[in-house]
Order: sequence, then structure tokens, then C-alpha cells
Amino acid sequence: MKQIDVILTKSRSYPIFITDKDFSELGETIKNFTLGSDAFIITNANIHKLYADDLRKAFNRNGIQSHFYKIKDSEQSKSVTEYIKTVTKISSIDVKKKLFLVALGGGVVGDLCGFVAATYKRGIPYVQVPTTLLAQVDSSIGGKTAIDLPSGKNLIGAFFHPVLVYSNINLLKSLPIRQIKSGLAEVIKYGIILDPKLFEFLEKNQQKILNRDHDSLKYIISQSSRIKAYVVSVDEKETKGFRTILNFGHTIGHALETANKYSNLTHGEAITMGMVGACEIASELGLLRQSDLFRMTSLLQLIKLPEKALKIDLKAILDAFSRDKKFIHGKIRMVLPTRIGHVIVADDIPFKLIKKIIQKQVRIYNGN
Amino acid sequence: MKQIDVILTKSRSYPIFITDKDFSELGETIKNFTLGSDAFIITNANIHKLYADDLRKAFNRNGIQSHFYKIKDSEQSKSVTEYIKTVTKISSIDVKKKLFLVALGGGVVGDLCGFVAATYKRGIPYVQVPTTLLAQVDSSIGGKTAIDLPSGKNLIGAFFHPVLVYSNINLLKSLPIRQIKSGLAEVIKYGIILDPKLFEFLEKNQQKILNRDHDSLKYIISQSSRIKAYVVSVDEKETKGFRTILNFGHTIGHALETANKYSNLTHGEAITMGMVGACEIASELGLLRQSDLFRMTSLLQLIKLPEKALKIDLKAILDAFSRDKKFIHGKIRMVLPTRIGHVIVADDIPFKLIKKIIQKQVRIYNGN
Repeated sequence: MKQIDVILTKSRSYPIFITDKDFSELGETIKNFTLGSDAFIITNANIHKLYADDLRKAFNRNGIQSHFYKIKDSEQSKSVTEYIKTVTKISSIDVKKKLFLVALGGGVVGDLCGFVAATYKRGIPYVQVPTTLLAQVDSSIGGKTAIDLPSGKNLIGAFFHPVLVYSNINLLKSLPIRQIKSGLAEVIKYGIILDPKLFEFLEKNQQKILNRDHDSLKYIISQSSRIKAYVVSVDEKETKGFRTILNFGHTIGHALETANKYSNLTHGEAITMGMVGACEIASELGLLRQSDLFRMTSLLQLIKLPEKALKIDLKAILDAFSRDKKFIHGKIRMVLPTRIGHVIVADDIPFKLIKKIIQKQVRIYNGN
Repeated sequence: MKQIDVILTKSRSYPIFITDKDFSELGETIKNFTLGSDAFIITNANIHKLYADDLRKAFNRNGIQSHFYKIKDSEQSKSVTEYIKTVTKISSIDVKKKLFLVALGGGVVGDLCGFVAATYKRGIPYVQVPTTLLAQVDSSIGGKTAIDLPSGKNLIGAFFHPVLVYSNINLLKSLPIRQIKSGLAEVIKYGIILDPKLFEFLEKNQQKILNRDHDSLKYIISQSSRIKAYVVSVDEKETKGFRTILNFGHTIGHALETANKYSNLTHGEAITMGMVGACEIASELGLLRQSDLFRMTSLLQLIKLPEKALKIDLKAILDAFSRDKKFIHGKIRMVLPTRIGHVIVADDIPFKLIKKIIQKQVRIYNGN
């Protein structure tokens, strides 16, 4: 079991464990953290079928009662309605117990569970057990929790860190390849923004990763966790400008997800469009040389587009842009690459240029 | 303008200003904090009628646009429905602006506004402008924010501090006397838990305070703010056991509020019952001598009972007890006074004793 720490002020630092053992280890680990007598485990039907029995037994052996709670595996589960249902369920069993939460699932489960943990009785402990590559390399680390409102994705949320993150590589064996690719998009992001070595590793080992080669997965998960933990340690609440670099690809990506109503694109596919867009903007502005642009866009082709053409409305994506949290004081701020392993945060990008690039992308995604 | 600081780690410390000037001063103060271009001001109809024009002008003179948002002045405004309505309204005007929130009102406005500020876009700055004595001496300070669910009062919330608290004594001139008394209950609480001098001041100056004597109000607000700020500085998130002393009177008090469906009792009236109950429990356990019990219950008689008899259901209040956040691991924890200016946090209070005391109180409140 490898350990990487997210270093925060006071006693709020926490470990990310990367492992390939069975759940017994998780039972013992959680027992050592003395979080409580009862685990309220938020998960989805698919994950529940695969792992609930093992996890229940592992917790039982360590004197912890399990209460499983299933949500639908879709962005709709990040609604206020589901949030209230979950909190109400928790309060109904929270009598004469010491409860903690477990997020057993991907980003949707983690975001909802984290926000519930942040706000139920003003905060109770929770553990992240990410079951997708995307959640293991990104969303389970860093304490960003949120739910959606009709007027915007992640519009309400909180910074609230888990007590520990438990990333088990074995859980990825049952993950559909499209989900592996979705997580891989964030891994490529880390390469471009901070880590040329990781980028080269991805260039060389693409096929092994897509074949779920154990050691390759272990390497990219460890390296990504290390990078995410480092960025969060330096700029926990995105107030110093540094955590902003994690938004590379996400400005256009989020607008695309909003315009597309989150229906038929994975997060990785959306931010891939965003990363390609940002690379092209950097290139047009003379910030990125052609050879690096070529390597970046070539690697990003790993994250294939969905085979069916989309129907993205250009106007909807431009509208969504103006609601983005990164749209500050009416200026457009974007993270742009200058070489492999380095990005800058640029303010005042001309909207005309962004529009031109988005137009081109939308044409490609819509297949015309 | 007197300043008292709430000292917190990192750059999160913030001032409480106690003043008797007009709103011009607030406009300038907020400008100096450079919080943003637009103030979203949550308030109620009554306060809006009295102060909105003055505040708008003061903000205008300092280059800040005002957006007033009125909620009903009742616990029902701390519902999820009102919370979502408020956030949706904010997001609809939050385009190309830098927004901050202002809580202009009492505890309900402050709790809702604080929780919105804590969770909208994972946290935006807010200012507390408390307009009741209760909010000035207690709820506006310390960062506890929350809303209610049908299954419990304050069941969801967050610790999230304002950027500043602006307590203006002039605002209390329009406050009904019953609301003055409600705030006074918390002031008496500070005397009992930590400050014998404040307690003696209250014994001597009861009538002046009820007559809204300017200097007396200024003294009790300053002293209460100082005590609350101190307790919060030592134990921000109630994890060290010290902040718990602020719960003196609140264990029985909250149960009473829940059982009574918050309809016809002020918070001060409810916690007065709680404080009298806790004093009697301490006395029965031999922790508090008769002479101190007499002084405490005598002073607490300042907070008169509502004239109409209540219809509190003994079973409902005992049920509510078991859902209290202070009911930990099936044991009953209560704050009990041992002398004027000193309390202890006692675990394992026999439920039989609590039941006996509550029974007596309920008989008195129900008038039979």
C-alpha cells in the first residue's frame, strides 16, 4: 500500500492510499482512524452488486456496521432532491450512533457524498473509495464537493476534505473502456500542465494502459495523485492562483457539458475538447510551438470522440461560457500551455478567438 | 466604532465593529474591505422598510450596487426551498459582477445568508449586519450557519465566518421589547458561563437595559461580543470541548423549540427554560449551592414567559432530546453551572433526573 499525503494546515492533512489488495485492508485502515461505529456508504447499483458484500464483511470484522445507500449513476443524482433525500435518510438512522460516510463510486458519488459530509450537522468525517480512474486520479482528491442546480453545474458546494482516500487498482478491472479513457484525459492534463515525464510515459505506453496493464495503471494513478496532492497542498482553496492550472481544458469543457446537458459525453471527452481548444488558442497566440501542439493533440486523440455525432448548439455553449465560475469581472481567464509540462493563466483572451476555436470544435463534434 | 477581533488561523481572523453611527460608516468600511462591486442583501420586509434606502445610498456613495432580497421573518425561511430560491436568484444576477452577500436582519437572515455564502460557488464573502440584540450578541459571531430540514432544526449547515460583523446599537431602537428580552437571555448565559462581572451588571441594570439605555446596551453588546469571540477563537469548530459551554441552556432549550414547532416561543424564552432546568439539575446533583441557584433563577425571571399558556407535549420534548447533536453515543451531555461565571460539561446525566426537571418546567409553561 503506497501512501501519498495531501498536506494542509493544522491537523487536516490526509493520506491517499494506492493499493491492489482486497477490502480487508480497507476495513483495518478505517478502524485505525476510529471514525465511528457505523458507516453510511453512498454508492450506485452496479458497484453495490460488485463490492457491497466484500465491504460489509471487511467492516464487520472490524466492528463497523454498514448502511448502504444507492443512488443512480448519473449527473441527476447531484440534484438538490437527491441531496435532501440522502441527508434525511442519514438523520433517520443517526440515533445513538457515531456515523461516518463512505463514497464508494465515481465522481457523482464522491461529489454528493462529500457535500453531504460537509453540511450534515456542519460536517462529519468521510472516506473516498473511488471506483473509476477519473475519481482515483482527480475528483476524490482535494476536497472540492458540489451539487448542481438547474441554473448551473456545481453551483452549490464546499471545500471539505475526506479523512482518507483509498484508491484500489483492482476496482478498475470492471470499468468500461470509455470510462478508462475519461480518466485518462485528466492524466494527460497533468502531463501537459506539470509533468513532461508523465507525458512521455503516456506517449509510450498508451496501449498498455488501454489494456489495463496493472503496473502502468499503478504508475499513472500514483503520479497523478502526487501531482493533484501537491497542487492542493500549495493552494487549497484556489485563492493563490496556482490551483487554477487544474482548470486546463475545463473552461471550454464545462461550457460544452452545460450546453450538452451532460447527456452523452463523458467528462474526459468534454475536457479533451477543452484541452485541444486551449492548445489551439495558445498556438494562435504564438505561445506554443507547432511541434508541442502536435504532440499534445496527438496524445489527446487517445480519448476518442463518441462515435455518434453530437448536436451541440454553438449559442448554448457560448451562453454557458458566461456563467462559468472562471468568467471573472467580465474577462475571460484561461489556462494555456506554453510547452509540455508548463502552462500559464492568461486573462483577457479575446472572445473572438475563443469563439472561432469553439466553432471549429463544435463542427467536428457535430460531424459536419 | 469599537473593534473586537475573532482570532482564527491563517488570514481568517475578522473584526466585530460595535457602533452607533449611521450607515455611511458601513459603506466606507465595506469599501475598504474591497469585497466586490455588488452587494446581495438578504433581509426581511420590516427591516427593508426601515433601512433599505439608507443602506442603498451608503453603498452607492462607495461604488457598490445594492440588490435587496426579502425573506419572511420566520423559521420557515430557513427551509431548503427558500435556500434554493435564494441561490437561484443570486446566480441569475451573478453575471460579469463581483458579488458579496450581506445579512441584514436577525438570526434567521444570518443563518440562511451564512449558509448561502458558505455553499454558493463553494464560498463567497459575506458581512453580518445584525439587527436584533440576539443576533448582535450571539448568532452573527462565530461562523455557525445552518438551515432546517423537516427532520431537524439546523440539520444542514457549515462553519463559515463572515468577513466582518457590524453591530449597530441604533438598530435596536425599533426592536420589540420581547426581542430585546430574547437577546438578553444569551447575555445572561455569558454571565453565568464565564463572566461574574457581567452577571452583576445585569442584576444591577435590568431596568435600564429594558428601557434601551444606550450605554447599558453598548456595554452588554461589547462584553458579549468579546466573550463569544474569545470562545470561538479558542475552539472554532467545537472540537476541543470548550465551545460546548455556549450550549448552556440549549440542550433542553432546543428540544423545547423542536417539540413546540418554533411557533410561539422566542429563542430566548426557550433557552431560559433550558438554563433554569440546567441550574436545577446542577443543584439536585449537589454541584451548585442554593444561593447561586437563587441569583441565577432570579435574574432569568427577567425573560418573562409568554403570557398565554403553551401546549407542550412532554413526550415530544423527550423525543426531540434524542435527536439533538449534543446527544452523543447514547449518553446525555449537558453544560451545568457550578457557580456564577463557571460551568462544567457533564456526561452521563441520569435521564430520570432530566425527565423530572423537564416535567416540572413543562407544567409551568403549560400553566397547570
